[in-house]
This record gives sequence, C-alpha cells and structure tokens, in this order.
Amino acid sequence: MLDQDLIKSLEGIVGSEKVLTSDEDVADRRHDYWVLSHLQSWVDVFEGRPGAVISPSSVEEVQAVVRLASETNTAVVPFGLGSGVCGGVRPDQSMILIDLSGLNQIREIDAFNLKATFDAGVNGLHAEESVTAHGLTIGHWPQSIALSSVGGWVSTRAAGQFSTAYGNIEDMVYSLEVVLPNGDLVILGKAPRAAAGPDLRHLLIGAEGTMGIITGVTLCLRQQPERREYRVFHTPSLAAGIEAQRRILQAGWLPPVMRQYDERETRRTFKSWCMEGHGLLLMVHEGPEGRVEAEVNAIDDLAESCGLVLGDSAAGEHWMENRNHVPTWDELFDRGLIVDTVEVSSSWSDIETLYDKVIEAVSEISGVVAVSAHSSHAYRTGINLYFSFAATAENPIDLEPIYLECWKQIMEKTAECGGGIAHHHGVGRVRKPYLVHDLGESGLALLRNIKNALDPQGLLNPGNLIPDA
Amino acid sequence: MLDQDLIKSLEGIVGSEKVLTSDEDVADRRHDYWVLSHLQSWVDVFEGRPGAVISPSSVEEVQAVVRLASETNTAVVPFGLGSGVCGGVRPDQSMILIDLSGLNQIREIDAFNLKATFDAGVNGLHAEESVTAHGLTIGHWPQSIALSSVGGWVSTRAAGQFSTAYGNIEDMVYSLEVVLPNGDLVILGKAPRAAAGPDLRHLLIGAEGTMGIITGVTLCLRQQPERREYRVFHTPSLAAGIEAQRRILQAGWLPPVMRQYDERETRRTFKSWCMEGHGLLLMVHEGPEGRVEAEVNAIDDLAESCGLVLGDSAAGEHWMENRNHVPTWDELFDRGLIVDTVEVSSSWSDIETLYDKVIEAVSEISGVVAVSAHSSHAYRTGINLYFSFAATAENPIDLEPIYLECWKQIMEKTAECGGGIAHHHGVGRVRKPYLVHDLGESGLALLRNIKNALDPQGLLNPGNLIPDA
Repeated sequence: MLDQDLIKSLEGIVGSEKVLTSDEDVADRRHDYWVLSHLQSWVDVFEGRPGAVISPSSVEEVQAVVRLASETNTAVVPFGLGSGVCGGVRPDQSMILIDLSGLNQIREIDAFNLKATFDAGVNGLHAEESVTAHGLTIGHWPQSIALSSVGGWVSTRAAGQFSTAYGNIEDMVYSLEVVLPNGDLVILGKAPRAAAGPDLRHLLIGAEGTMGIITGVTLCLRQQPERREYRVFHTPSLAAGIEAQRRILQAGWLPPVMRQYDERETRRTFKSWCMEGHGLLLMVHEGPEGRVEAEVNAIDDLAESCGLVLGDSAAGEHWMENRNHVPTWDELFDRGLIVDTVEVSSSWSDIETLYDKVIEAVSEISGVVAVSAHSSHAYRTGINLYFSFAATAENPIDLEPIYLECWKQIMEKTAECGGGIAHHHGVGRVRKPYLVHDLGESGLALLRNIKNALDPQGLLNPGNLIPDA
Repeated sequence: MLDQDLIKSLEGIVGSEKVLTSDEDVADRRHDYWVLSHLQSWVDVFEGRPGAVISPSSVEEVQAVVRLASETNTAVVPFGLGSGVCGGVRPDQSMILIDLSGLNQIREIDAFNLKATFDAGVNGLHAEESVTAHGLTIGHWPQSIALSSVGGWVSTRAAGQFSTAYGNIEDMVYSLEVVLPNGDLVILGKAPRAAAGPDLRHLLIGAEGTMGIITGVTLCLRQQPERREYRVFHTPSLAAGIEAQRRILQAGWLPPVMRQYDERETRRTFKSWCMEGHGLLLMVHEGPEGRVEAEVNAIDDLAESCGLVLGDSAAGEHWMENRNHVPTWDELFDRGLIVDTVEVSSSWSDIETLYDKVIEAVSEISGVVAVSAHSSHAYRTGINLYFSFAATAENPIDLEPIYLECWKQIMEKTAECGGGIAHHHGVGRVRKPYLVHDLGESGLALLRNIKNALDPQGLLNPGNLIPDA
C-alpha cells in the first residue's frame, strides 16, 4: 500500500482527479496484454495491482513524479496503451503506475524535413493519420497500431509489417525526450546522423521502462508511395520460399512486406487461395513507379527460379484488409484455449532447422493442439519466424504450465540453433529467463551494470526485462 | 614512466619483443592523424609519448593486459591503424598503448548469410578485398579505407562514401566482440535483428576507446552490384543542388553516392568539367539493372525540375579514381599551410544558413586563406556539410590558435543553426569542448554516468571524447 502522504503529494503534482487508487479504478491497469496475465485474471488468480494510477499531463509532471518517487524510494511503472504482449507491466501495491496516455499531443509535423514529433502517449494510428493528412507516412505498421502508443513502440523496440523496406522502429527514431530515473530531462538525437560518442538513444529503445520514461519522440517520415503492387506465390516447400526470399533481399530488392506462411497457416488464413501441399509467400511492393515495376519483374524471375508458382494477388489484398484483426484472449479462453505467438530469428542457413525443431518440440507437449509459423521480417543476413501455438486443458488453470513449457521449448530450440530469442515483441517477463541466450552471462552483467548506473535505487519497472537486476 | 615490474608483466603476457618502450620505438604511436598533433610534432612542441606500446596477438592477451591495467591502475589507449583525425589518441608516459594491428585475421566469410567476421585490427582495404573475392562487398568506403582498421571504423562511428544507399558503419555491424574495462569479454549482437533489451552494441560504436576494446567485428555484407552508373549535374546555386538532393531522397531514391561541391571546390576538384558560376552534383548509382535504370531516369527529371544541367559523367569517373588521394600534412606544413576538414550536419531547411554563416565566420579569421564545402552524405531528414579550410602564418607555431579558432567558429555556428556538430569523424579532443551542443548538460551527465559504470577507474583512453570525465 502506498503511504497517504505520498498519495497527497502525487495529487499535488497531477491533480487529485488524476490519481486513482480504488480497486475498481485501477483494474484495467494491473497488467498489459500478455496472455498469461489475462488467463490468470480470467481464472481469478491474478495477484497484484498498482498502488496508484496517475496520469500526468506534462513532461514537468512526469519529472516531478519521478523525483518524488526517488525521494520516497517508490517504484514506478510506465504504461503507454497497454498493448505489450510479454508481461512488461505487472505492478504491485507498492508501486505507482504512470499512465502516459495523457501525453497525447502531436507536437510538430515537418513535411519539408520529413520529421514529426509526438508526445509519447499518442496513439499509433492517430500519429500515422496525422501525417497521412500531409501526404506522408511513418511507415511503422505493427499489428497493434490502433492499440499502441508511439512511446510504447520505442520502449519495446517494435517492428511493423512494412519493415523490410521501411525499417524497424530504431531506424525511424530521430530523437527521444526522456525523463531519467534521477528526474533529469535529456533530449537524445540532434542531427540526421552523428558521430558524437555512443548513440545514447539506444539505452532507451527497447528498455521497456527500466532505464527512463520516454515522454516525446521525433520520428523520420516518408512520402506516401507513388504505387503499390501485391504479389503472391505458392511455395512448394518452406525451403523453397525461404530461398526465394534470401535471393530477393540479397540481390538488393526491398519489398516493404514479405510474409511466408507454412502450409498449415496458409490453409487457415488463405483458404480461398491455397494450393494443395503448398505454403504461400506474399509481398507488397511500394515506391516510385519505375522502381516498383523493376522490382516486380525481377522478383517474378527469382521466384520462378526457386520453383514458386505465381498466385492470385487478391490474397495479398485480403491480407492487407484483415491483417490487424485478432480474437480477444477471453474469446479463446471461453473455448478452453490458450493461444500465443512467439517471434524469433536466425541466419538464413539455420532457419529451417529451427522451424523443424520448434514444431517437433512444441507438438510433443501434452495439451498442444496446433503449432505453426510464418515469417514476417527479413534481412540480408537472415529472417524471423513467428510461431503460433494453441493449447487446451480440461481445467483452465492447467493451461499455465503448458503455456510456459511451449515458450521454454521455443526459446531453447531457438538458442540451440544459434538464433535470437526475440525479434520484435520484446522481453518483459516471459522472455526474461532466456535473455541470457542472446547476451551471455557477461552481457547480462553489462546490462545490470548500466541499469544500476541509471537507476541505482532500482525504481523503474522493477522485475521487468533484466534477470536478477 | 611505467613501473619496471609492470613492463615485465606486460612482457609476460605478449612476449618481450611485443613490448616497445624506447622513444624511437614508440615515436609513431604518440598520436593519430589529427593535424594539430602533426603540426605540434612538426614544429617540435608535441609533448607526450606512451609509456609502452604493446601488440597483443590474441583476444586473451588483450583481456590479460586490461586486467593487469586495472590491477595496477594504469591507463590504456587502444590504437587501430592511427588514421583518426580528431585527436582520439594522445597517450602520456603513464599509459599503455595497445596496438591492435596484430589482431589481423579474417575469421570467417559467410557468403550464404552475407556476413563476415574480422579481427578488429584488420586493415579496411584488406577486409574489403577479402570479400570482393567472393563477389561481395562491405560497401563501407571511407577515404581512409587503406589506412584504417575495421575496429577503428566501429570505434569512431565512421561513414563511407557510398553511405546514402549502403548506410553508415552502425548499419553494417552485425555483432561486436569487446573486452570491457573489467576484462570481461562480451559478444553483442546475436541475430539479424532483436528486441532483447537495449542494443548494447551502441555503447561501443563511437565510444572511441573509452568504454571497452573492440577485438572482433562481424559486418553485414552485400552482393557486388549488377550495374554502376555515374551522373553529374551542374548546379546553378547551392540551394538548387540541395533542393534536388532533398527531392531525390524524399521520393525514395537511394544513389549510393551523392556529393555536391560548392563553386570553389568545383573549380578546384573538377577543373576540366566545371561550368562558370556553377557548382557540381555527382552521383553514383549501383544495384540491380532495372532499378539503376529507373533511378537514373527519375533523377534526370527531378534534377531538371530544380534547374540543374546534366554534365559529363567522366567527372564522376574522375572522382572515383582519385577520391582517396590526399596530400600529407607535412607537405602542407612545408608550404606554410595548415588545412583541415570539418563535417557537420543539419536538417534540409537549415543547411544553407549554416553554410553561409560558417563561410562568413571562418573567412573573417585572420590567416585563413580558403574555406569551402561539399556535401557527402544525405538522408531523408537532412544532409551533411564537409567544410575545408586552409590557413597560413609567418611562423608555423602561430597556426595553432588560428586552427582552433576555425574549429570554434564552425562548431558554434553549426550549433546556432540547430545542426549536429559531428557527422562522421568523431569527437576526439578537437570536438570535446563542443559535445555539449549535441547532448546538452544532462546528456553529458548521462554519458559520464555510463562511462563511470563501465570504467570506474577511468582507465580507458582518458582525456578523450568525454568532457570532465
């Protein structure tokens, strides 16, 4: 429980109507969109709630709250729009949750220099629409775009569906405005590019609220593309589609969207378009007229050379229209199911083994009823896989250990194959035990060292991301 | 002076023939290629020399030396191939200089996944040639390519001449192997892309030897381009050329090389091709056949729309052949001149004012005989300027204050115009007093805090980069 004097001080900073303390008022700020938190809530075993939810309206208020937290040794948990899926938010009664959705102003759109500055709490779709009105695009399209905040994109190191050409969030961040754990305000990022010491923006990108509180974000923009084309191919095998993607990217082409579905997901998602025994590779090409045309022609040839069969581009348009629709967790719990997605990545040469090992290991777990994958982000050096699994149990409470075993198998098989354990959803609590696979023990020690330097009292989002912080 | 016991311990680690201590033996390791160090050397007022120059042959030896340095509270200065131009290396007698050029093995070239791993001390041109043999390219072409090391590229956050399409060094780094100040070895970077906490590679990229010693670097590669085209335009004004570059990049085109020379530099560098009263914009286009063709066609139209006049592409080939030739500092001192280049950047909307202010301010400095600029790196959000200045004085010793005043004016005018003070040469000692313009006081405090966390004894390259570290 938070001390009443502290609550009064918080009210003094943000106004009493912006300090919520009752069970009812804080109920929807107890956790993010991690399915395990939702399951625990659904079966009524979820423990914990923030001591108070406060909603600052200015950067100065955020600074004042952080300073107060430091003086009173109180932990704070930053909260954007709550769409994180890894358990980055699970405060307890001793903690203040800082709801940043009140910082929701579009500060500036600079169409001449292709930059826009947003308060951290601006809704992603709102941000995108604000620049669309100027003929521009951020080009960042996470599935959660309508449910996530600009600051959340940065904090979680998000990736959008159009990343292959437009980059991931770290490629779009021009500058960050951040309240550090000591209350200092820093603005990191002054120029289109700089060689002015270590790039400190990267201390915050992906820190999931453990290193500071992002209050403002300037993103680089793009002009709306002149032309868009869809291209769909049937893949006779996972290997053939992967090889086509490798050749396309390594030849220097950059279709913004490249997604390859295994046979199972193709049947499920593209029922009207699937070809017996085949998976599906879907591309969206965007850009200047002449480049799109050259790209489509070259890729048709490369795809054919890998044995792919040109399909109906209507499947691409179907994906485009339905790409952000997902069932709610509760709808699935009602049917006795728990479902989750796990994104990992590896070099081109390891990805098929990784796929096979994960599918085999997860399939063997008792209770699992489905496991499948698609790729959604590709690079010259490798590609991601986005596994989906579904499990069922007589008693919903028994879903938790099955769920955790699925994650364990995916994380460990990925590491065994030399892959990276987190492509774009972040770490939170679900990946925390496996972060050592990416960083090694000495890398973890370095991360803890940095955390301790910035936040010696350990007050920012404790329990999240960093093992044994 | 270093203690004899320490020298003995160093000999025990790397072998006595790899520990140099005489004035003569350490003479060419007293500083890097910063012109002011060379001037001071030339007029015989340069003070300082490393206590010892040691050349480890393995990562384990580097770790052992760093641990020994920590135990004995001895400062260490990492040294690649010495081509830095900002004074990043100026050890005194109390310090050990670690010459990394003995770590010179090409560890692996992976043509399937487009990655290559190099020892940090591998010569840049050697690295590039090793992958050329496989039909690949790193795509990183700093003017110093034949004089710099792969580790140095990373430590200084270098940019190459082909950066507009191929990115700067931070876009090419796949993973880094680093000896931390405590002797720990970390490998940072496991996957094509990761959302696994803050990206710790960025603590080292651009740290100029202050945060750790890079011993190995894995870079992403590219396939050799199918086609290369040169394109040269005469620019009726700086503004017209800048506007053309802005439109080209913001439309989504990416010629690897885009360089625009002001009138003065055009006359100097492109004598046979210059058009009275015009500057010059030079481009190199590379990539798949169809894309290069589309790009050249679109850019011809965009350039024309800005009033540019198509020139002779032979000027482009001329640049390509002569681009890495520069006179030595001593040749210039012999003629009574000091010359330097200073690269800064800004948003598109500020760059002409920045150019005008710098040219005016530097021209007014007594002793300055020339000041000019070209751009060499451009982005959707802005562009760099690469100023060159030359000054003369009756007595060579008097060149130093003139030189420092030129730097001061360029740094301060850049900051006044909202620009970034360092595009790609780094900070070293020459920019250290001005780093506050990029980071602000709270950003500097953050940088010092990180430095202190990693290197609490302050042993790594003290005096470099970080003000009041």
